[in-house]
Amino acid sequence: MKRIAVLTSGGDAPGMNAAIRAVVRSGVYHGLEVYGVYRGYSGLIQGDIKKLELGSVGDIIHRGGTVLYSARCEEFKTEEGRQKAVEQLRKHQIDGLIVIGGDGSFRGAQKLTALGFPTIGVPGTIDNDIPGTDFTIGFDTAINTVIECIDKIRDTATSHERTYVVEVMGRDAGDIALWAGLADGAESILIPEAPYQLDEIVERLKRGGERGKKHSIIIVAEGVGSGVEIGEKIKQATGWETRVTVLGHVQRGGSPTAFDRVLASRMGAKAVELLLAGERDKMVAIRDNEVVGVDFDVAFSQKHQPNMSLYELAKILSI
Amino acid sequence: MKRIAVLTSGGDAPGMNAAIRAVVRSGVYHGLEVYGVYRGYSGLIQGDIKKLELGSVGDIIHRGGTVLYSARCEEFKTEEGRQKAVEQLRKHQIDGLIVIGGDGSFRGAQKLTALGFPTIGVPGTIDNDIPGTDFTIGFDTAINTVIECIDKIRDTATSHERTYVVEVMGRDAGDIALWAGLADGAESILIPEAPYQLDEIVERLKRGGERGKKHSIIIVAEGVGSGVEIGEKIKQATGWETRVTVLGHVQRGGSPTAFDRVLASRMGAKAVELLLAGERDKMVAIRDNEVVGVDFDVAFSQKHQPNMSLYELAKILSI
Amino acid sequence: MKRIAVLTSGGDAPGMNAAIRAVVRSGVYHGLEVYGVYRGYSGLIQGDIKKLELGSVGDIIHRGGTVLYSARCEEFKTEEGRQKAVEQLRKHQIDGLIVIGGDGSFRGAQKLTALGFPTIGVPGTIDNDIPGTDFTIGFDTAINTVIECIDKIRDTATSHERTYVVEVMGRDAGDIALWAGLADGAESILIPEAPYQLDEIVERLKRGGERGKKHSIIIVAEGVGSGVEIGEKIKQATGWETRVTVLGHVQRGGSPTAFDRVLASRMGAKAVELLLAGERDKMVAIRDNEVVGVDFDVAFSQKHQPNMSLYELAKILSI
Amino acid sequence: MKRIAVLTSGGDAPGMNAAIRAVVRSGVYHGLEVYGVYRGYSGLIQGDIKKLELGSVGDIIHRGGTVLYSARCEEFKTEEGRQKAVEQLRKHQIDGLIVIGGDGSFRGAQKLTALGFPTIGVPGTIDNDIPGTDFTIGFDTAINTVIECIDKIRDTATSHERTYVVEVMGRDAGDIALWAGLADGAESILIPEAPYQLDEIVERLKRGGERGKKHSIIIVAEGVGSGVEIGEKIKQATGWETRVTVLGHVQRGGSPTAFDRVLASRMGAKAVELLLAGERDKMVAIRDNEVVGVDFDVAFSQKHQPNMSLYELAKILSI
Repeated sequence: MKRIAVLTSGGDAPGMNAAIRAVVRSGVYHGLEVYGVYRGYSGLIQGDIKKLELGSVGDIIHRGGTVLYSARCEEFKTEEGRQKAVEQLRKHQIDGLIVIGGDGSFRGAQKLTALGFPTIGVPGTIDNDIPGTDFTIGFDTAINTVIECIDKIRDTATSHERTYVVEVMGRDAGDIALWAGLADGAESILIPEAPYQLDEIVERLKRGGERGKKHSIIIVAEGVGSGVEIGEKIKQATGWETRVTVLGHVQRGGSPTAFDRVLASRMGAKAVELLLAGERDKMVAIRDNEVVGVDFDVAFSQKHQPNMSLYELAKILSI
Repeated sequence: MKRIAVLTSGGDAPGMNAAIRAVVRSGVYHGLEVYGVYRGYSGLIQGDIKKLELGSVGDIIHRGGTVLYSARCEEFKTEEGRQKAVEQLRKHQIDGLIVIGGDGSFRGAQKLTALGFPTIGVPGTIDNDIPGTDFTIGFDTAINTVIECIDKIRDTATSHERTYVVEVMGRDAGDIALWAGLADGAESILIPEAPYQLDEIVERLKRGGERGKKHSIIIVAEGVGSGVEIGEKIKQATGWETRVTVLGHVQRGGSPTAFDRVLASRMGAKAVELLLAGERDKMVAIRDNEVVGVDFDVAFSQKHQPNMSLYELAKILSI
Repeated sequence: MKRIAVLTSGGDAPGMNAAIRAVVRSGVYHGLEVYGVYRGYSGLIQGDIKKLELGSVGDIIHRGGTVLYSARCEEFKTEEGRQKAVEQLRKHQIDGLIVIGGDGSFRGAQKLTALGFPTIGVPGTIDNDIPGTDFTIGFDTAINTVIECIDKIRDTATSHERTYVVEVMGRDAGDIALWAGLADGAESILIPEAPYQLDEIVERLKRGGERGKKHSIIIVAEGVGSGVEIGEKIKQATGWETRVTVLGHVQRGGSPTAFDRVLASRMGAKAVELLLAGERDKMVAIRDNEVVGVDFDVAFSQKHQPNMSLYELAKILSI
Repeated sequence: MKRIAVLTSGGDAPGMNAAIRAVVRSGVYHGLEVYGVYRGYSGLIQGDIKKLELGSVGDIIHRGGTVLYSARCEEFKTEEGRQKAVEQLRKHQIDGLIVIGGDGSFRGAQKLTALGFPTIGVPGTIDNDIPGTDFTIGFDTAINTVIECIDKIRDTATSHERTYVVEVMGRDAGDIALWAGLADGAESILIPEAPYQLDEIVERLKRGGERGKKHSIIIVAEGVGSGVEIGEKIKQATGWETRVTVLGHVQRGGSPTAFDRVLASRMGAKAVELLLAGERDKMVAIRDNEVVGVDFDVAFSQKHQPNMSLYELAKILSI
């Protein structure tokens, strides 16, 4: 193996740049040439590929987003598109590809491996929803962004009868809502994995009001429903003023946290090592603080589940 | 004058604590006793009044919200309610009252003065919408909160055809949208003071797309309309993905900026000086970097207008 | 067990308040009365003990420092002092004590257990230097504080021949320097666990300069030596301008990160569960993402060692 | 005037990028071609000059540092060096130069004007020490950086007898120390403009200790002396533990605040307008919220003085 490439795909996540840096620098350390593919699978098909040097990844470890950009690509979903991708890789004499992204990106990578091209995945998504790894790159930053916003909402010191609803990302996975909710002492946390009862939420709110709470915060993962609509329901059920915040793409950005930078650095370096060891069709994962390789098939055979003991703990601590 | 009181009223704003601290400390410095009224005019009517010492306002200069709390008060809008308020003040042998709040709070203060009780206003509101002062306490913090959020949105590096709509506070005044939009290079800024043309926004977006802009940001003051609805309109007009963020009460909180802490400190101290000089029926204002007293009547006779030259500048710089 | 107490001891760490909150709330959830001991062992000896209610720990999860304060206590190091402490606990009818702090605080706790009083430790220190647990409360916040500062240093864009030395905390343990250095791409990381060679540092600096690096950052754990002095040595060896930052107690404060709040919440709740299960002479630890109880003796028999694979990785990635 | 150039010189300051963006975009708006000179006067002499387009300054408004870099230049201090600079400008057919920097940079600009080449200065320095303007670009960001650090020091809740000394930038001007000290309620503020008495500092510390203050903070501008040494003196005089923080170049970086971005945008645009109006030998200034042009000679004839009324106020409020 003499020449490898790296791309970022899917929704971007803080820490992707740290992972790119680690791929390039550890690749060079091991005597490889490293190429960057711009705009994900779309740029791969179009041959938007450039050599990266040590200096190409200087001063990016602390930046959000991805210097390689990311884009959706319908064409890559076709057999023909993937053939073009492999041709581009061969044309550039690239021997292995590292794909930084989420679940969907890895399924694409697996199909390249099926076409005979070695790929390794690095889990980068703020949603933390990839089975087989304890954490994904970007998740820690996203939950810190959320709690910084909620901390500010906490400051508003008004009448007792006020409720704040905060809608956070998470179409299928409740990890962001769950961790941020626990970390911020939210009164109720609504996640796709646990059905919610409006009655129970209202009861908790009223109990808090009676106890003299100055405000109550309800975190809603977007997969559960619209924060605006849930806020309206709560208002009707309680008669209290209800204010809604929809954080949206604020959660995708920001300078990565130390945890995400270290995780991304370790994972990027591990991906290079796996390629050098002749591995393919695997993703890098962190399990019990160790960075390891996991077969894509093993990862895909599982279903991601957030740590539901945190859900129970959050209920106890927000009484 | 031997004994004065201070209260916070209306929507809270970062820096109110710094103003309270300045009232207490400079009051004590001038030999006065200073009392805190809790929960605004509501607490005033109910006699929720306590003596504040130097140490009562220690370690609060950097905290958002207000340690005196704030609350709406329907009763104070009645003649009877205001009579009760004056009685409470007299009962506690208080000689002057400092009201930290917005426009509506000052109209209440003025009515106390009409009942013979000296009041001085200190402008505290994130909206910067009080005529007669260049800046209000909390505005600088609010716009910094907004731009920190928009900076994060800027990080997401995806396809060209994506638009972000950010709804910010400002029911009647566009100052937050205007300053934050200029500070963040927003493509379009929608404020109540300037009618918007959907056509023009769409045209600017398309021009940016042609020029290769990776994303476009549109800031909407809530007084203009719902960010969600405006996002929908833009999506329909452009066919581009449009993501909406509604920052809500995130903007009311946070540790105050240096500017707001210094402004609040100066204004709080000035309010005490005005009371001591026998002034009443005035608000403290900052004009051309000087902290001065302005008659409530003069302030109320004007209409707040944001600096529209910034609006023109923002248009030029976001081409 | 009907009544338990909690105290914080030693240098404070962000997240201690979240741990106190978790102790109180999960204690009440399990039907216990929970008392707070103020100013650590010093307050324990003096009987500075008050009952904490659910509301006593409201709105503290996001605050740095400790609402129970912390203080050194020479008297507790004597047999007589510890006897007084146990008498106070018995006088208040307290059945178990949770000590949030570091190594030294736990040795104190163990001596109370030896006097027949059940204690459980919760590891709270920014240094991450307690054997037996993967992480301590406060460490994640501290390294994020350090990297935010270094990120700002990174912005200064001047001549190539400039070196920045940043002295961080860590008298005996290099964890802060190591993680922050890896997370920020520092050119050299000086930790107590690895002897440093001035020659090697200078060589790395020169190599970076030749490669066109705009700046080089050297992180020094305080246990290695004074940042000011090491900066002077580097300046003499390279002839380059060398700027020194000594972060000091900035690293002890700040709102805790999501990671620290979740860790502290889990650990505080676990400490209560351990007491209820009749355990004593143990500390709570996180191992492989699980929160467990570990015998103090087992913990003390080990020596803390940072993850040296990160040290090697940092060297590779900062070439 | 058809073609103008812009450079950044001296110590960099947050907001310089926003000023560069404003120069380029408003230049293009007015039909000009705008060139960027890299690495200050040094790059000017060497002809390191490139055309900047609208897109060249996209996504930089929020970044610290300067995309044009900055460097010291001994050669420019010679007549010969400046002749070379003018030749380069003429060779590139540039009709006017905008210099973003401090005092020293402006004296250089003035000498170019003396050689017949029109220059306009834009005040960019964190020190706020340029006479003739109320504020300089970068100052607001720097003081916010300082107070964020001091806020963290405030969190540490230990014994009463502890003093924190924070050394901040300011060799000749005390503005950073003064504003940050007032904004953070520092017990003592040591600036070059006011001689300090160790006795008075110690007395204030002791008074605070008696009043039950949990900590005392002393801000020292570097021009007054070394924070480490002053800390040592205080320790000897009080016998209390004294901890020192030296913030160093942390203060030069960071994303600019809203205030600095708006100020820089206005000033950059004004500089272009001045050049177009045939002005030269002037600097842009903000006076009483208005952005105006001021003769270099007028500016240089004054001496910068911080607002000493803030110094008095800080003393009153930190009792």
